[in-house]
Amino acid sequence: MTLTGKSIIGNTVSGEGKNIFYGENPSNGKKLEPVFYEASEKEIHLAIEKAATAFQQYRNKSGKEKADLLDVIADEITALGDDLITRCMEETGLPEARLKGERGRTVTQLKLFANYIREGSWTEVRIDKADPARTPPKPDIRSMQKALGPVGIFGASNFPFAFSVAGGDTTSALAAGCTVIFKAHPAHPGTCELVGTAITKAVIKTGMPEGTFSMVHGKSTDVGLAIVKHPSIKAIGFTGSYRGGKALFDVANSRAVPIPVYAEMGSANPVFILPNALKERQEIIAKELASSVTLGVGQFCTSPGLVFYQQDEEKNFADFFSKSLGESMPGVMLTTNIQGAYKTGVEKLARTKGVNTLVKGKEGEGCFGPAYLFQTTGDAFLNDHTMEEEVFGPSTLAVTVDDKAQLMKIARQLGGHLTATLHATEKDLRDYADLISILEQKVGRLIINGYPTGVEVTHAMVHGGPFPATTDSRTTSVGTDAIKRFTRPVCYQNFPQSLLPAELKDENPLNIWRLVDGEWGR
Amino acid sequence: MTLTGKSIIGNTVSGEGKNIFYGENPSNGKKLEPVFYEASEKEIHLAIEKAATAFQQYRNKSGKEKADLLDVIADEITALGDDLITRCMEETGLPEARLKGERGRTVTQLKLFANYIREGSWTEVRIDKADPARTPPKPDIRSMQKALGPVGIFGASNFPFAFSVAGGDTTSALAAGCTVIFKAHPAHPGTCELVGTAITKAVIKTGMPEGTFSMVHGKSTDVGLAIVKHPSIKAIGFTGSYRGGKALFDVANSRAVPIPVYAEMGSANPVFILPNALKERQEIIAKELASSVTLGVGQFCTSPGLVFYQQDEEKNFADFFSKSLGESMPGVMLTTNIQGAYKTGVEKLARTKGVNTLVKGKEGEGCFGPAYLFQTTGDAFLNDHTMEEEVFGPSTLAVTVDDKAQLMKIARQLGGHLTATLHATEKDLRDYADLISILEQKVGRLIINGYPTGVEVTHAMVHGGPFPATTDSRTTSVGTDAIKRFTRPVCYQNFPQSLLPAELKDENPLNIWRLVDGEWGR
Repeated sequence: MTLTGKSIIGNTVSGEGKNIFYGENPSNGKKLEPVFYEASEKEIHLAIEKAATAFQQYRNKSGKEKADLLDVIADEITALGDDLITRCMEETGLPEARLKGERGRTVTQLKLFANYIREGSWTEVRIDKADPARTPPKPDIRSMQKALGPVGIFGASNFPFAFSVAGGDTTSALAAGCTVIFKAHPAHPGTCELVGTAITKAVIKTGMPEGTFSMVHGKSTDVGLAIVKHPSIKAIGFTGSYRGGKALFDVANSRAVPIPVYAEMGSANPVFILPNALKERQEIIAKELASSVTLGVGQFCTSPGLVFYQQDEEKNFADFFSKSLGESMPGVMLTTNIQGAYKTGVEKLARTKGVNTLVKGKEGEGCFGPAYLFQTTGDAFLNDHTMEEEVFGPSTLAVTVDDKAQLMKIARQLGGHLTATLHATEKDLRDYADLISILEQKVGRLIINGYPTGVEVTHAMVHGGPFPATTDSRTTSVGTDAIKRFTRPVCYQNFPQSLLPAELKDENPLNIWRLVDGEWGR
Repeated sequence: MTLTGKSIIGNTVSGEGKNIFYGENPSNGKKLEPVFYEASEKEIHLAIEKAATAFQQYRNKSGKEKADLLDVIADEITALGDDLITRCMEETGLPEARLKGERGRTVTQLKLFANYIREGSWTEVRIDKADPARTPPKPDIRSMQKALGPVGIFGASNFPFAFSVAGGDTTSALAAGCTVIFKAHPAHPGTCELVGTAITKAVIKTGMPEGTFSMVHGKSTDVGLAIVKHPSIKAIGFTGSYRGGKALFDVANSRAVPIPVYAEMGSANPVFILPNALKERQEIIAKELASSVTLGVGQFCTSPGLVFYQQDEEKNFADFFSKSLGESMPGVMLTTNIQGAYKTGVEKLARTKGVNTLVKGKEGEGCFGPAYLFQTTGDAFLNDHTMEEEVFGPSTLAVTVDDKAQLMKIARQLGGHLTATLHATEKDLRDYADLISILEQKVGRLIINGYPTGVEVTHAMVHGGPFPATTDSRTTSVGTDAIKRFTRPVCYQNFPQSLLPAELKDENPLNIWRLVDGEWGR
C-alpha cells in the first residue's frame, strides 16, 4: 500500500499545503518516507464545508445505516492487515503484540457502538401525551437526542489506533450522527492515512454522503486552530496533554459561538495502599504496581503516578517497589518530544524540595524512557501541589503518610483525576469508608484491588473525571456513553405522527426503551 | 409574616453587609419596606463553606429522602398563603391570578421532581459484570450519575416563583444531590426571603444538614461573582439576560478550575406562517399570536419576537396582526430597568434601516410596556443580523419574505433560539419538510400550530437551545431532564457489593431500570 502523504478531503486526497513534515521512527530517530503535506487553510475549510453539507443528510440516517458504516469501517481496518501494523510499529516504536491487541480493541469498539446504535434506545426518548381535556389543553410533547453537527477530533499519540483516526471519539461522533473532521497526529501520520483511507472506503461502500469523514494532516498548531475556530464546527474531541487540551478549550470558549470541548488530558491516578493490605500483600502489590507504572513505557493516561501508604517499620514496601521498578526493562518512547518532556518532568521532580529519587531504572540508547521511583512524605506533598501533576512516562511518586488523618487531608486536597485505586482488605474498606466518599468526588473511576491501566470498552466505563483530568467531567471518552458528548435534546410539540422521527412515533417501530408519561417501557 | 431583609446562611439569618437596597413597586415606583442587606463576602463564603460541608452528607441521601425534602418545600410554600402572593404582587406588578398560577406550577414542579427521584431510574445505572474466564480477566464495572457538589443558582426576575428561589434550577439541583447557594433577585427580594425561609424550614423539618440551602441578597454584581469564583462551587444555573449569562460563563471558564454554567438567556423565538395556513387561518393566527406576544407584557423567554410569512396581495395578515396588537391592553413591566431596556430596544429597532413601525400599542402612565409591531423584508433581515436579537418585552418583528427560497436562506442563517414555531396545513408541512430539518438544528423546541409561550413542566420538555439561547445546548432548564445538569457519571470497578450504592447492587433493591450487560431491565 503506497502512502500519498496527503490529507483526505471528503472522498479525495489533497496535498496543496506548503509546509511539509515526515514521520519518524523513534527507535532509531530516522525519518520515514513519504513526505506529508500540512493541510492549507483552504483545504481545511473545504473539508469543513463538505462536512456541513454531508451533515444535512447524515444526521437523518437511521441507527441501522450508521451501524453499517461502523461495521464496514471495522472490516476495512482489519483488511489493512500487516501493512497497518508494520507502518505503525515504525512510526511509534510500539511492539507488534501491543499494536495487534490495540487494533483488536479498536475493531471491537466500532462493533460495540454499531450494536448500541442499531438498537436505538440510546436516543433517550421521552414522550408526554396530550391532554386536550386539561385547562389549558396540554400539548403533545416528545424529545430525543439529536446530533450536534460537524465535529473536530484530535487524535492522541499514545494509542495510534484506539484513540486516533477510528478511535473512540470518531466512533462515538459518527454513531451520534455527526460528521467528522479528524486532525491526524503527526507522530503517526502514515498510520493515520491508512486508517483514514479505510474509513473513506467504508463511507463510499455504505453510500454515505461525501464529507461524512475528512482527515487533515498538520504538525503546526495552525491546523488544529483552523478547525476549532470554524463556525460550522459544533464540538471538539481531544486526547492529549493538559497544555494542548486547555488551549483548545480556551479558544473554543472565546468563539463568537462557544462550543463544547471534550479534552481528556490525563492525570496522576493516585493509588492508596491501606494498612492491612500493605501488611498482607505488599510484595505482590509492589510487583504488580511496578508493571502498571511501566506498561507501555508509562505512556497511558491511567498510569499510576502517585502511591500513598503508611510506611511499615521495615520499609519493606519501598524496597519491593524499588526492586521491581529497578528491574523493569526500559522501552522506546513514542516520540523524541515525549521523551524530552519526560526527562524535564523527572528532573523537575528530582529537584523538588522533600523529594528523594529512590530508583532510576535501566536506560537504553536512543528514545528510551527509564522508570523512576521518587519518594516524599505526606507533609511535603501537602505543601507542594506541583507534586500532583502528571509526569507522562514510567515515573511514580511514593508518598509515605503519617496516619489516616493525614491521608484524609491529602485526599480532600486532591484535584481531579481520571482514576483512584485502593488496595484494601475488608477491614481496610470498613475503616476507610470515608476515604471512598472523598475519592468519589475527585475521579471518574474508582478501582478496588486492581490497577488503573487497562480501560475496558464497555457500557459502564467512565474514562473521564473532574478538571484538570478533563475539561468536562460530565462525560466519558471511552464506552458507549461517550456518544452523549455529540448530541443534544430536541423537543417536538404537537407534531403530526407522519413528521416525527421513527424513535418518537406512537407505535414505536424501532421497539426501543422510552419514557412515556413518566413510565419506562417499550 | 415580618421580613428581616437579611440573607439566609445555612439555618440562620444574617445581615452584616454595608450595602443596602429596597424592593420597589413597579406600579407606582414606591420603595417597599424593609431594607435589604447585600450579603458581605464573608457571609457568602460562610454560606458556601456550609454548603460544602453539608454536601458530604446530602450527596448520599437516598432518592426517597431528597424527595421528602422537595415535597415539604412544596408544602411550606403553599403554607405561606396570601402573604406570599401579596408581597410578590407589590414587588413585581404581576396580577394575582398569574402569580397564583405560577405558584401552582412551582409546587407541581417540586412534586414532579420528587416523584422522579423517588423512583430512581434517572441515575442511569450501567452494569457490566465480570468475566474472570476472559484473558485478561474482565473486571466488574458499574457506573451511575452522582451529584457535582455545591452549586450557585441565580433567579430570574420574570418568574418570581417558577424560575426563582424554589424554581426549576434549585429543584433540579437539590434533586440531583447538590447543595444550593441561591442568589436572590433584587427585583423581588421579599418574595425571595419568604420562599427561602420556607426552604430552610423544610431542610430543618426533614433533618437535612445545615447548609443544604442558603440564600444571599445582592443588587451589585459582586455578590454573584463571589459565588461563581469560589472554588467549592461546582456549577451555575442562571436565567436572565444574554449580558448577564455570558458574563458568568466567561468568569466560570476563566477560573483555575472551570465549571459548567447553565445560562438560559432568552431568544427571539421565530414563528413561520406557511402559505396555506396563512390563507386559511390568518385572522385567528394574528389574534392568537398577538396574545402570545403580549402575554405577561412580553416578558417571557419564549415570547415570539420574529414572524416570517409570504405576504398576500391584500396584506391582510399585517392588518389583522396590527389590529390585535394595537388593541392589546398595556401591562406594568417588572422593573423600571426592564422598562428602560425595552424602550431602548424598540427605539433601536425603529431606527434600523429597512424597518417600519406598524403599531405602537396603548401606553399607560408609569412602568408600562406598550406593544410594538415592526415590519421588514426578507432582504433587509438577511443583511442585518441585529434584527434577530431579542427585545425583551411585547415587541415583535414581522418579516415578509419573497418566496420559499428566501425563507430557507433565512432559516439557515438563524442563530440559536429556544423555540421555533410553524403554522402550517398538511400540505404546507409536506412542502416545507426541509425547513423543519433546518430548524431542528437551531432550537431546543419545535412547535406546530401552537405558540411558544407556555412551557410545560414535563419529562419531555426541552427549554434550551443552541447559543446564544443558552450557554449549553446539551441541557434543558425545565422538565425532569434538567437534573442531569448537576451530575456526572462515576464508575466503580471491582467493588464488593457491600460498598456499592443501592442503585448498583446486584439485587437491585430500588427496582430501577438499569442497563446490565447491554440490556435494559429491572
